Amino acid sequence: MDIKEAFGQKVKLLRKAKELSQEDLADKSGLNRPYISAIEQGKRNVSLEVIEKLAEALDIEIKEFFEEK
Amino acid sequence: MDIKEAFGQKVKLLRKAKELSQEDLADKSGLNRPYISAIEQGKRNVSLEVIEKLAEALDIEIKEFFEEK
Repeated sequence: MDIKEAFGQKVKLLRKAKELSQEDLADKSGLNRPYISAIEQGKRNVSLEVIEKLAEALDIEIKEFFEEK
Repeated sequence: MDIKEAFGQKVKLLRKAKELSQEDLADKSGLNRPYISAIEQGKRNVSLEVIEKLAEALDIEIKEFFEEK
């Protein structure tokens, strides 16, 4: 699994843990829903600034995206 | 300090802790030295794949880039 896929799976896991839909996460992060969907499918090589927006929207620290658990 | 600057400072800190020059890190990561310099100056909104290359070159886990200490 490459870094994009691993990151996408983690975004999905954390989003669901917060009981947010992709639409909710899109609204909170300022990103659009199709982009959120593509990220979760591991199809986007996202940047630092997108990672930061997702972390803020999910109310987590960025490092949590890269933790094993 | 924005995310790019914070990330750049951390790359520099971790590079120096490993006693690597920017040239060494460029060689190890497959990135070029001017790009490494720009990253460390907080001027690049790097992607997941670049973050992964830097982590592998520094022999650290990606989350270490985003830890406070």
